[in-house]
Amino acid sequence: MIIAVDVDGGDYAPKEIIKGALKAAQEYKIGLILLGKKEVIHVHAGHYLKKLPIEIVHCPQTVTFNEHAVEAIKGKPKSAIVIGTSLVKQGKADAFISAGNTGAVLAAAFFILGKIEGVERPALGAIITTRPHIPSLLIDAGANAECRPNHLDEFAHLGNIYAKQVLGLENPRIGLLNNGEEEAKGTKLTLETHQLLKKSKLNFIGNIEGHDISLNKADVIVTDGFTGNIVLKTLEGLGDALLKVRKVGHAIDSAAHLRGRALLADVGLGSMVKGMDFEECGGACLLGVKGTIIVAHGRSHARAIKNAIGLAKRTAEKGVDKLIAEDIKSRTKAGTEGDPKNVNTPV
Amino acid sequence: MIIAVDVDGGDYAPKEIIKGALKAAQEYKIGLILLGKKEVIHVHAGHYLKKLPIEIVHCPQTVTFNEHAVEAIKGKPKSAIVIGTSLVKQGKADAFISAGNTGAVLAAAFFILGKIEGVERPALGAIITTRPHIPSLLIDAGANAECRPNHLDEFAHLGNIYAKQVLGLENPRIGLLNNGEEEAKGTKLTLETHQLLKKSKLNFIGNIEGHDISLNKADVIVTDGFTGNIVLKTLEGLGDALLKVRKVGHAIDSAAHLRGRALLADVGLGSMVKGMDFEECGGACLLGVKGTIIVAHGRSHARAIKNAIGLAKRTAEKGVDKLIAEDIKSRTKAGTEGDPKNVNTPV
Repeated sequence: MIIAVDVDGGDYAPKEIIKGALKAAQEYKIGLILLGKKEVIHVHAGHYLKKLPIEIVHCPQTVTFNEHAVEAIKGKPKSAIVIGTSLVKQGKADAFISAGNTGAVLAAAFFILGKIEGVERPALGAIITTRPHIPSLLIDAGANAECRPNHLDEFAHLGNIYAKQVLGLENPRIGLLNNGEEEAKGTKLTLETHQLLKKSKLNFIGNIEGHDISLNKADVIVTDGFTGNIVLKTLEGLGDALLKVRKVGHAIDSAAHLRGRALLADVGLGSMVKGMDFEECGGACLLGVKGTIIVAHGRSHARAIKNAIGLAKRTAEKGVDKLIAEDIKSRTKAGTEGDPKNVNTPV
Repeated sequence: MIIAVDVDGGDYAPKEIIKGALKAAQEYKIGLILLGKKEVIHVHAGHYLKKLPIEIVHCPQTVTFNEHAVEAIKGKPKSAIVIGTSLVKQGKADAFISAGNTGAVLAAAFFILGKIEGVERPALGAIITTRPHIPSLLIDAGANAECRPNHLDEFAHLGNIYAKQVLGLENPRIGLLNNGEEEAKGTKLTLETHQLLKKSKLNFIGNIEGHDISLNKADVIVTDGFTGNIVLKTLEGLGDALLKVRKVGHAIDSAAHLRGRALLADVGLGSMVKGMDFEECGGACLLGVKGTIIVAHGRSHARAIKNAIGLAKRTAEKGVDKLIAEDIKSRTKAGTEGDPKNVNTPV
């Protein structure tokens, strides 16, 4: 298993990215391809380069945070994002992770890897854990701001496979995020999506509301990428705020610190905060493209990168992209064989 | 100051509603009109009826949670929602609060009180407090699921006045909730709204993201009612979850309970949880109608109702509805007098 890592993107690149990647190589027993400035990687990776199965690919161009995604990809063929994605395409890496410009990572995946046949809109699936040890998948976490009902139906199917494989669930409960539980409530988008999901063979449990997220009412939370982005970042922000008050508490009084750790563990708050902490899950997976691409958070420190690499490994091992392709084929086949429930909505 | 209270709506009606109303009457020195079943009110309010300035208005009809809003209002003229709203219209009550069917409360407000001239879409303004003691206003918290840019521009102006009056802010920072900070990011709705807000005379600070909510980056968070509903309920759900883990901790070990309270206070978590608890703010205010209407949460217990009545009192005292009408007039006037910045977007 070889994971390609962009050490050139993210707020704490390259140092924290390299640190996280080295930890991941040791912990998960994987090979690494580090993409970035050769000399910088040598400085930070140091003697590990000889001890671990690490290859360095020098990438002289850098895509910055604010660059226009498509222009960046077209104009910077020697950037870590373009080269890393190409390595996946060529089969030289099993997955690529980047904490750089998300739009550029998505654009590179679309152009270089391409969409799986039958997928119109690849989507970001983000694992969230508001309850200790009980993860759920939010899809789309931000790849498609404006969506149509058939896109949300597609996200549900992509999420279903990912939840089965990566969360290890047999029959994931699919919920549609809405402003009311009732079938008759919602926007044009959610009303129509509800009907599509009802007709699908998924384990669709109906509409769920914002407060159901932390109740883990659904395993897969289906929403458009605008709402998904805002929900994910709202949760992250609260996780940050909770971590901060914990840290302030610690600083005030070191006796309180020790009492605090014990108590937070007692009441389950420690792991709750951990769950709301984006560094814990590491990154979101781009589902629907031919290959494994993990988008790590821009603010990733070493721990987040290590966890994102772990996620990349699990996703690639399961061959999630191939399973998605098979699922679409079988649904299309069933559809043409006369089961109208399985026909995809026309684009 | 007389507040009309629907004791017939909400999950814990009538007992908890009456209990909260009685507390509010004592604490805020206000008069009450309790609307519901006469005999039931007598049972729960008991001897307070003689001690406090309370009037009872018997309402033989009940609007249930799942009823179609407009049909309920038209078919049940003797319900607490219709009679309570009419009391505000007639000037017999300064405000009306209800924890009943939200749609029906909004419909009654539209039909009976009417919209303020110049307002196309009244919106729900909800006070949220993710940081201890630092509230911000989320608008629209759920009245309008589908919106156009001029509606969001309107919400910003409504929220601006409410934040000035009820949060006591001189020059509220208006932020547009979006899936990216950059001006060029967003959906068609947020991109166009951004341009309208830039042209306004508001203190528009630009786009804010989900994580900025708990950073209190903006005083007024402008969004459509679909996103607003989901964000509000996501925050509420987390508040509930935090309260729950605290309670579990307490149950495990009463010594830990005492240590726990001290510690949570030390680190600021106690007040943070309090801030995320919807009962603390009590309810959302419907802005843009002629009169003061507070929508309390369906799950309101006595404390939430008491706080919702407190909010109703503050809102009515400030005459927020009249200030909104004046603001629209002055902006329209400025517009016709040649300042193109102040012209409202045509409907």
